[in-house]
Amino acid sequence: LCCANIAIAEDAPSLTERQAQTVDRLIDAGLEDDVAWEVLESVTTEVGPRLAGSEAEARARDWGAAKLKQLGFKNVRIETYEMPYWERVKEEAEIVSPFPQPLIVTALGNSIATPEGGLTGEVVRFRTLPELQAAPETGLEGKIVFVDEPMARTQNGSGYGTAVQKRSQAAVEAGKRGAVAALIRSAGTDSHRNPHTGGATRGGAPTAVPTAALSNPDADQLARAVNRAEGPVTVRLDLQVKTAESVTSGNVIGEIPGKTDELIVVGGHLDSWDLGTGAIDDGAGIAITTAAAKLVGDLRGKPTRTIRVVMWGAEEVGVYGGAAYAEAHKDEIDKHIIAAESDFGAGPVWRFDTGVAEAALPKAEVIEKALRRLAIIPGDNHAHGGADIGAIRGLGVPVAGLVQDGTDYFDLHHTPDDTLDKVDPAALRQNVAAWAAFIYLASEMDGDFGRLPVAQEE
Amino acid sequence: LCCANIAIAEDAPSLTERQAQTVDRLIDAGLEDDVAWEVLESVTTEVGPRLAGSEAEARARDWGAAKLKQLGFKNVRIETYEMPYWERVKEEAEIVSPFPQPLIVTALGNSIATPEGGLTGEVVRFRTLPELQAAPETGLEGKIVFVDEPMARTQNGSGYGTAVQKRSQAAVEAGKRGAVAALIRSAGTDSHRNPHTGGATRGGAPTAVPTAALSNPDADQLARAVNRAEGPVTVRLDLQVKTAESVTSGNVIGEIPGKTDELIVVGGHLDSWDLGTGAIDDGAGIAITTAAAKLVGDLRGKPTRTIRVVMWGAEEVGVYGGAAYAEAHKDEIDKHIIAAESDFGAGPVWRFDTGVAEAALPKAEVIEKALRRLAIIPGDNHAHGGADIGAIRGLGVPVAGLVQDGTDYFDLHHTPDDTLDKVDPAALRQNVAAWAAFIYLASEMDGDFGRLPVAQEE
Ligand SMILES: [Zn+2]
Ligand SMILES: [Zn+2]
Ligand SMILES: [Zn+2]
Ligand SMILES: [Zn+2]
Repeated sequence: LCCANIAIAEDAPSLTERQAQTVDRLIDAGLEDDVAWEVLESVTTEVGPRLAGSEAEARARDWGAAKLKQLGFKNVRIETYEMPYWERVKEEAEIVSPFPQPLIVTALGNSIATPEGGLTGEVVRFRTLPELQAAPETGLEGKIVFVDEPMARTQNGSGYGTAVQKRSQAAVEAGKRGAVAALIRSAGTDSHRNPHTGGATRGGAPTAVPTAALSNPDADQLARAVNRAEGPVTVRLDLQVKTAESVTSGNVIGEIPGKTDELIVVGGHLDSWDLGTGAIDDGAGIAITTAAAKLVGDLRGKPTRTIRVVMWGAEEVGVYGGAAYAEAHKDEIDKHIIAAESDFGAGPVWRFDTGVAEAALPKAEVIEKALRRLAIIPGDNHAHGGADIGAIRGLGVPVAGLVQDGTDYFDLHHTPDDTLDKVDPAALRQNVAAWAAFIYLASEMDGDFGRLPVAQEE
Repeated sequence: LCCANIAIAEDAPSLTERQAQTVDRLIDAGLEDDVAWEVLESVTTEVGPRLAGSEAEARARDWGAAKLKQLGFKNVRIETYEMPYWERVKEEAEIVSPFPQPLIVTALGNSIATPEGGLTGEVVRFRTLPELQAAPETGLEGKIVFVDEPMARTQNGSGYGTAVQKRSQAAVEAGKRGAVAALIRSAGTDSHRNPHTGGATRGGAPTAVPTAALSNPDADQLARAVNRAEGPVTVRLDLQVKTAESVTSGNVIGEIPGKTDELIVVGGHLDSWDLGTGAIDDGAGIAITTAAAKLVGDLRGKPTRTIRVVMWGAEEVGVYGGAAYAEAHKDEIDKHIIAAESDFGAGPVWRFDTGVAEAALPKAEVIEKALRRLAIIPGDNHAHGGADIGAIRGLGVPVAGLVQDGTDYFDLHHTPDDTLDKVDPAALRQNVAAWAAFIYLASEMDGDFGRLPVAQEE
């Protein structure tokens, strides 16, 4: 049921002169911000990798709570929940014949293990996932499926959709056909020997067979080996994993109390994959939103609405933090005026999207115009808000999207190379400026953003 | 004793019209060459990594001999020699406290092992090797020295000199002062989590303590950890290696017989470090010189001089192949008219250097002018010819240097990332064209290049 179309149009909103001046001052301050870098350097250095459910993620929560307090946030707390655990223990692969040599792979999240010592099989290469899906339902018995589909480089990350299909479906489709394992070309756009992990779906995908990603150069190499070999190419794959049915994870929350208990919710996810130090995914999102909220909090007087920063836990492995937040806060869900997550790296914001009631679009336009000086263009009203926002959006909470340039994002995403040196301080500041302006206006402008249709499933 | 200055000046040489036309045809053919790529793809795919003295290097020799025969070379043979062996078995490092997290390291060639299970020590950071060298001769007992000196990016590779000093001296200087291990920032110019190995010196450097290179992002991280920690930063390092006193290695040789037994010697080194597949170091050198020699061999009629292609073994770990070649061929050393090695990646040649008797400089100028259409400029007469040429140059053999653009070479050098996808086919062809012209002219021009002073040590 959608109520947007029947909402009564409001008068075109506009900013007071004071509000317009404040936005400009916030943007100026954002462009000189050092807090985001400090937060980002701190979490990537002092915590480092922080796999969902791990002891490192627990240290990250303590870090997050301490950091929010240190920066002056109020009502700082950790809201815990339970979740299943998956961890890589060993990942080795090699071409056994005819061209013996190691291959660099990484296990995909939630992959089952191979037998101890690994398994060996002949490689059958499929150029794309659809090619595998179109293959007969038998005939791959004992084989290792290799899905070699490359990923498109795009500004808005739209190449990721089919890449995720490959990552999550290769093992299932391979298993269906009798294969013993599935290798994929990394869901990534770089040419370095850092394979891209990822791919766990919530609750454990039915990955019928063990599955790992080859770095892109290793996928090139395996494809060449298959093409140059006169007979079969045999690969040995050894994946060992550790799992637990239930471990504790949590969301870290801090607030800038407003004059009202209406909420503007912003944040990023605190967990990272284990391979890198989670600088672009998603230390940057945490750093940007924390620094931007602090800039608003540093203004004289309380904001009208309460600004809530959430560092969600366990996003990578199934968005457990986002779901737990929605469950824990469902009684105050109507207080959530708008929510937005920063989780697409540290590239500059180039577009402002919303997912709000149609009646509120004139307000979105006011925000968008305030962002123009940051080289941000108007987007559409189809924003999803971010993975961790999905659950509360499903409960009707409007969302916004400060869309970042992700042209290079998938060079680094989910690899060992996701480290602080990849972040451009100037682009990070541009993000802080945009988020500060957005948070301030969402808090101060008259009226709300309406409600979104409630999802059937919740 | 230098005889160059007292040589009698020859008449200024010039090419016949037919020679000039042939050079142009060779360059045209080189710019459309597919042989070099095929050779390079073949060795990097079908052999892959080929550590000096390993079973993989033995396979590479068989590959090389078969490839030379297949391409029509004559007198193809493998000339073996014995050498000591060093192989990495395990390399792990982690920050233990106060910021526990893994660090990506690689053992440096010839490093001794740590005790089983590793060693743990407090990190003492030196910004440069000279800082360590200036430190008192005591005071580092039980410590892990970290030499954080960065490497300069240059076109001609001149940043490598001080980087090699750091790589080979850190462990010695650390050991002198009582330290238990030495970590260095990789001798490399990239920012990826692929550490750069290298550094073995012939016969085993007296690396008093175990030593490894951190990838550049990991060196950044360790430096930040040291700066941010309130107390000591403790690291655990576990390096295990395998060594053998004597194993067999060898040079692979093939020839295009000339009308005379005078020799033009060109080539690259066949061995590679174990981490990558040796595409730029030095599959490219082998591919370029083999393809160029073949172009000359494909001309109608025999060349005047014999063109000898050598794929030297065991360069990386102490230039054993180059030394063995000089020893094996000392009786025919006077037949060596000129020698040159390609061993600086696959970037375009931008300069033509020589190391010839002064009386022969007019001939070098003729060659240089023939290369101008390939955007190659005149260099100097200080060419060293390449590591594997060092020993025969020491016996008086003149050398040439087709100097490649190495601006990006040390992004990849000695890392897992040294793979085929990093090679630009157009630049590879430009190399083939330049080498074909050089080989042809060195073979066909009247007169020789004189002799160089014989080194005292040989
Ligand atoms: Zn993320
Ligand atoms: Zn992610
Ligand atoms: Zn080399
Ligand atoms: Zn080398």
